[in-house]
Amino acid sequence: MTTHMRRVRIEWGDCDPAGIVFYPRYFAFFDASTAALFEQVLGMKKPAMRDAYGMVGFPMVDTRARFLVPAAFGDDVTIESEVTEFRRSSFDVRHRLTKDGELAVEGFETRVWVGAHPDDPKRIKAQPIPPDIIAKFALPSGG
Amino acid sequence: MTTHMRRVRIEWGDCDPAGIVFYPRYFAFFDASTAALFEQVLGMKKPAMRDAYGMVGFPMVDTRARFLVPAAFGDDVTIESEVTEFRRSSFDVRHRLTKDGELAVEGFETRVWVGAHPDDPKRIKAQPIPPDIIAKFALPSGG
Amino acid sequence: MTTHMRRVRIEWGDCDPAGIVFYPRYFAFFDASTAALFEQVLGMKKPAMRDAYGMVGFPMVDTRARFLVPAAFGDDVTIESEVTEFRRSSFDVRHRLTKDGELAVEGFETRVWVGAHPDDPKRIKAQPIPPDIIAKFALPSGG
Amino acid sequence: MTTHMRRVRIEWGDCDPAGIVFYPRYFAFFDASTAALFEQVLGMKKPAMRDAYGMVGFPMVDTRARFLVPAAFGDDVTIESEVTEFRRSSFDVRHRLTKDGELAVEGFETRVWVGAHPDDPKRIKAQPIPPDIIAKFALPSGG
Repeated sequence: MTTHMRRVRIEWGDCDPAGIVFYPRYFAFFDASTAALFEQVLGMKKPAMRDAYGMVGFPMVDTRARFLVPAAFGDDVTIESEVTEFRRSSFDVRHRLTKDGELAVEGFETRVWVGAHPDDPKRIKAQPIPPDIIAKFALPSGG
Repeated sequence: MTTHMRRVRIEWGDCDPAGIVFYPRYFAFFDASTAALFEQVLGMKKPAMRDAYGMVGFPMVDTRARFLVPAAFGDDVTIESEVTEFRRSSFDVRHRLTKDGELAVEGFETRVWVGAHPDDPKRIKAQPIPPDIIAKFALPSGG
Repeated sequence: MTTHMRRVRIEWGDCDPAGIVFYPRYFAFFDASTAALFEQVLGMKKPAMRDAYGMVGFPMVDTRARFLVPAAFGDDVTIESEVTEFRRSSFDVRHRLTKDGELAVEGFETRVWVGAHPDDPKRIKAQPIPPDIIAKFALPSGG
Repeated sequence: MTTHMRRVRIEWGDCDPAGIVFYPRYFAFFDASTAALFEQVLGMKKPAMRDAYGMVGFPMVDTRARFLVPAAFGDDVTIESEVTEFRRSSFDVRHRLTKDGELAVEGFETRVWVGAHPDDPKRIKAQPIPPDIIAKFALPSGG
C-alpha cells in the first residue's frame, strides 16, 4: 500500500502548559495527513474527488491514538500514513508519528465512504468504495 | 444597547507553554460571544435567523484585540459583549474580558451582514441590516 | 463511582465545512471534562492538587472515540464522565456525549499519574495514585 | 528589513461551516510565522534564543487582522512576514497572506520583549531589545 510521509513543525500554539503537544492537535495532524494521502494517490484534491467519484467525504467513525514519547515546541516530527485495510464501504488508516526516528504517537482511524443519499441529495449514505480507488492505492508508485 | 455577559472557564487546552491563554483562543471566545449576543437579543439561533431574515451570516472583515492581563489555566473570566454601532450593512462589536473585575482583554470586531446574491444564490452579497434587528438591540431588555 | 455531567454548546468554530463538529474538538471537550471531574471530586483545581498530592499531572497515554451521531453548530450536548478503573499508577475515564438523549460520541482515556522524579525534579515519573483520591471517587456524593 | 515567506495549506480542520478559514486560525498561522521569522534571522529556535539573549518570550500586546478575500479548504496560501518597527522594548510585525497573488488577509502585531524580572526570576519584565538582534534584522540577507 502507498505510504504518505510529511514533516510537521510543532508550533508554540500546538503545545500546552506542560510544554508538549496538546493531544487533540495530533488528531488534527492525522486528519490532514489522511487528506494528503488521498490527494497523493488519486492526484486530486478533495473537491475534485467529489466530482470524479460522487463521494461527499469519508467521515470518521472510530479513532484512537497511543502516546509514547512527548513532542515539544520546535520539534520537527515525521508522520507516515497508510491505508491498512479497505472494506466494502469503510477503510482503516494508520499514522506513525516519529521524532528523531523514534515512534512517538501512533494513530488509528476507521472512516466510512459516503455519497449523496439516492432518495434525498441533502442526506448522505455509505457507498461502496470505487474499485478504481482501491486499485490506485495498491500500485507501488501510489498512482 | 443590550449587553451579553457570560462566564468562561480557561481550560488546559486553551493555554500555551507559558501557561497563559494562547491568544487566538480569545478570538474564538469572542466569536462565540457575538453569536450568543445575537441569540439573546433576537431570541433565536443562527439557523433560525437565516430563515427569519434571509441572512447568510455576518462574516468578519476587521478584528483587533488588546491584551492587558494574562489569564491562565483554571481562571474563570467574564466576557461582556455589545454592538457599539450599526451602519447600513455592517456593524461593530466590542468585547470586554475581565478577570477578578479587572479588564484583561479587549476585543473589537467589524462584521458585514450578508445574504444570498440576488443574481446567484450560491454567492453572497452585503445586505442592509433589517431595521427590526437594530430596533431589538436598542430595547433596554434586549428583546 | 462519581459521574461529572456538563452541558456544552457546539460553537461555529467547533465545526467543519460539513457543518458538524471537527472531531479533534471532541477530544478537547473530553480533556476539559476529565479536569472538571477531578475538580468536582477533590474539591480543588489542578494547581491545588499539585500542592496537596505532589502530582504534576495525568498525561494521556491512550485515547479513543467512537462517533455515532453528528453534532452541529448550535446544538447543546451533554457530556457525562466517570473513572471506570483505577490501577496502581494509571486510570481509565469514559465519556458519553449525548444529544437529545441519544448517545452521539463515546470517548475512552487511559492516563497515568505522574509526579516529580525523585532523582531529578525537572523530570517526571509515574507515581502510585494516592489511596485518598481513589476513596473520594468511591463516595456516592463525589467528595 | 528581512522578510520571511512560507506556504500554508488550508486544511479541512481550519475551516468553518461556511467552508472558509475560521478566522482565529489566521492568528495561529501568523504566530507561527513570527516565530519562523525570528528563527530565520537569528539562526536559532526560541529555546536557544532564551539561552543566548536571556529573553523569556515576546508576548502579544495588540493584534489586528483585516480579511479581504476568503480562503477555503485545499487552498495553498503564502504568508510574508516582516518586522516593521523596533522600539526600545517592543516591536511591530506585519503579515501579508496572499492567495493566487492577491492580498487575502493582512495581520498586524505589537509584541513586547520580556526577560526574567531582576528581583524575582519567576516573574517577567519588559527588557530592552538587544541591539545585536535589531542589527541582524537590518542585514539584507537576514542573518
